[in-house]
Amino acid sequence: MTTARPVQPLEADLLIKGGLVVTVDAQDTLLEGADIAVRGNRIVEIGAGLVCQAKRVIDARRKAVLPGFVDVHMHETLMRGFCEDMPLMEWLEKICFPKDRAQQASHSYAGALMNQLEMIRAGITTFVDIWRFPAEGARVAEQSGLRGIFTPQIIEWPAGAGETLENNRRFVEEWRDRVPGRIFTWFGPHATYSCSAELYREVVRLAERYGVGIHTHLAETRAEVQQINERYGKSPVEWLDSLGVLGPHTLAAHCVWLTEKDIQILKQRDVAVAHNPTSNAKTAAGIAPVLELLAQGVRVGLATDSNLSNNRLDMFAEMKMAALLQRLKQDDAAALPSRQALRMATLGGARCVGLGDEIGSLEVGKKADLILVDLHQPHVWPLAGGETGNLYSHLAYAASAADVVTTVVDGQVLMLDRQVLTLDTDMAESVASAQSVDLAKRAWGLDVRPIKW
Amino acid sequence: MTTARPVQPLEADLLIKGGLVVTVDAQDTLLEGADIAVRGNRIVEIGAGLVCQAKRVIDARRKAVLPGFVDVHMHETLMRGFCEDMPLMEWLEKICFPKDRAQQASHSYAGALMNQLEMIRAGITTFVDIWRFPAEGARVAEQSGLRGIFTPQIIEWPAGAGETLENNRRFVEEWRDRVPGRIFTWFGPHATYSCSAELYREVVRLAERYGVGIHTHLAETRAEVQQINERYGKSPVEWLDSLGVLGPHTLAAHCVWLTEKDIQILKQRDVAVAHNPTSNAKTAAGIAPVLELLAQGVRVGLATDSNLSNNRLDMFAEMKMAALLQRLKQDDAAALPSRQALRMATLGGARCVGLGDEIGSLEVGKKADLILVDLHQPHVWPLAGGETGNLYSHLAYAASAADVVTTVVDGQVLMLDRQVLTLDTDMAESVASAQSVDLAKRAWGLDVRPIKW
Repeated sequence: MTTARPVQPLEADLLIKGGLVVTVDAQDTLLEGADIAVRGNRIVEIGAGLVCQAKRVIDARRKAVLPGFVDVHMHETLMRGFCEDMPLMEWLEKICFPKDRAQQASHSYAGALMNQLEMIRAGITTFVDIWRFPAEGARVAEQSGLRGIFTPQIIEWPAGAGETLENNRRFVEEWRDRVPGRIFTWFGPHATYSCSAELYREVVRLAERYGVGIHTHLAETRAEVQQINERYGKSPVEWLDSLGVLGPHTLAAHCVWLTEKDIQILKQRDVAVAHNPTSNAKTAAGIAPVLELLAQGVRVGLATDSNLSNNRLDMFAEMKMAALLQRLKQDDAAALPSRQALRMATLGGARCVGLGDEIGSLEVGKKADLILVDLHQPHVWPLAGGETGNLYSHLAYAASAADVVTTVVDGQVLMLDRQVLTLDTDMAESVASAQSVDLAKRAWGLDVRPIKW
Repeated sequence: MTTARPVQPLEADLLIKGGLVVTVDAQDTLLEGADIAVRGNRIVEIGAGLVCQAKRVIDARRKAVLPGFVDVHMHETLMRGFCEDMPLMEWLEKICFPKDRAQQASHSYAGALMNQLEMIRAGITTFVDIWRFPAEGARVAEQSGLRGIFTPQIIEWPAGAGETLENNRRFVEEWRDRVPGRIFTWFGPHATYSCSAELYREVVRLAERYGVGIHTHLAETRAEVQQINERYGKSPVEWLDSLGVLGPHTLAAHCVWLTEKDIQILKQRDVAVAHNPTSNAKTAAGIAPVLELLAQGVRVGLATDSNLSNNRLDMFAEMKMAALLQRLKQDDAAALPSRQALRMATLGGARCVGLGDEIGSLEVGKKADLILVDLHQPHVWPLAGGETGNLYSHLAYAASAADVVTTVVDGQVLMLDRQVLTLDTDMAESVASAQSVDLAKRAWGLDVRPIKW
């Protein structure tokens, strides 16, 4: 006679219990009523009815549990919604450049507070920031708990509108080991038309020396392609390739206007691409050849770009916009299916920043970056399970940032039941308000003022 | 010596107090910290610090107060998100037509419950429904309190996929005087390729006899234009015009593929157009020539189309999509400004359905159809007032349906602080779930089932 050995309960710091788990793993598994156990910052078990002793339990019934979104290109800007609806070049010259030249550290700090609050609420758990005074954003991320890749925006022309290479180098020195695995420091040369060949070459040298990535804008508008062709006799992609910039550690934002040869270069160099569908429409840049890039096996992630050019940080909206714009571009209502859009917004983005083995899907051993999405709402009814169910459609076409109720990064709960736990919302609102008034005055001589209630 | 005559307090049933009032009136006035007094179903006063004795007061501080949205084309369908991401013709033939043939009154009732709940929550206060078993939708609207224009979807080919003309006539007879000024009954011949000349002529005769409007799909896809040209030697617009269908009481949905002559006909006949930007992208139909229509003075409203082709009923999203797609189409980042998008989504829609004097803006004497939008959220920061403020940008590009907290129609509060007061949410969810399982089995032989939590 043998006695059954008692089941040893799993010990965990956090248990996400009874949710509809969307793994985004290799098999695209969908698990109903499943639990996820987290110890430290990693997932240690996934399954139904886990026997588990957890320090903290979060009820996930009637909620989808997804890997957190990875926003692979954004600027933590402050001046959302001012001076809009004007032609692009006029907007850049009269509004954006004066603002960027007037920008001070305090404005970057306010922008970081506002943007990171919005991202936590939207279920964006990892973001690639390219902006001024990067230490301000990193400092806020240290507190907010988000996973951030900071790439100081280096601009040579127009003078004073961005960071210098030396600022970027110092930032890497200061921050690269400060929050290991969660705050990353890259180089951020802005674009082919705002940085010189010498600068790009020096960036390549420094990025190799520090072992970090490079983030840059590339082939965003027809005007850029024309200008670079006139200046260097090459397409923007060819030109950066000739400087040695393109490689597996380079993340290129936009890539709207590509030749077939450009696509082959991006493929051969294994460059990652940040696709910004909403921004590319709002600035009238165009629709990127995403299906062509994916068909060549190029890594593509989704991105919001910024509250200036979007104006929302909502990766659900980017999934929908990516799919819809490809349908229009390809004249094909089957162009970019919802499962593929979700994969791009999560694992695809993680692979773009070299973190495909660490985040982007819900798997044992990966870091616990996950979100809970409320499904008990009329706009995601009816909801059916199994192979013939409609969850992926709901996530890509009907859900939105506002449906995220809980956000976990690195095993830490940053938002619980729509309450952000790591940043002070009222403080952030008053800082953002005061700093935006200040920047409007410095940049544009505009007297803007908060609403009288 | 004279004594000041005491101010006679205004008597009101409802006072919306201290909001940021976006009137959408002729002057596009923006009032900070203003009150709106409602007596019965009409606005009786608007201004700061009203002296008012009201039976009910709603605090609107930190909220925008807007006219409710008018969704000028939607189907109250039930089967959101099933069997998607396939080529359009295959989707119509294998998924939509079988579903429409299998549709019974109980499915329409469930769809109406789900859709009207979603609309109340999204701040849509008036909608134009074109769908099967219209009495089910009207019955739900009687209870929900929404303002609805019901246009039974008459289809001759394929047989059995829609309502008959006789059904439509009986519905008009039965419902036209039942809820005066709030529930309207029109005729809804589906489209040029699914209805005959004889049917359209009879619709015109009956619509005149009853003094009601006509709603139809028109020039949605290139395939339709080609088919009608082949069949009748005319464009869809020319063909309907030759039948006498086009006039000021006709609302045409989509109008994506128009010749210059078509646009002139729509202008001369004073036809109203329902623009469905998200749906037109999702079905890969194309981008409608909205600016060209507006330039000719054609009335244009915004619409969601349905949870099958969208899949969300969110007029904020339609404002954004309308603006962004025009920017792409026109290669102009100033193409459709945010103020104009808001006007289309409210007053523009009201004018499309002949209610421009009754709803669509916040003015004394108009019916009280209004919504409160929460501005105390990071995604609509910073927020500035006055002429240089950014509210219109926030509404068109950053806000979403989820930001609506309170919805008032005809002076009745349908939702207060995100709690819907007129429909039972739990009941609606279980009805929608059960009926969708039933319809999936009848239509497609599919065993779908609710999620196990």
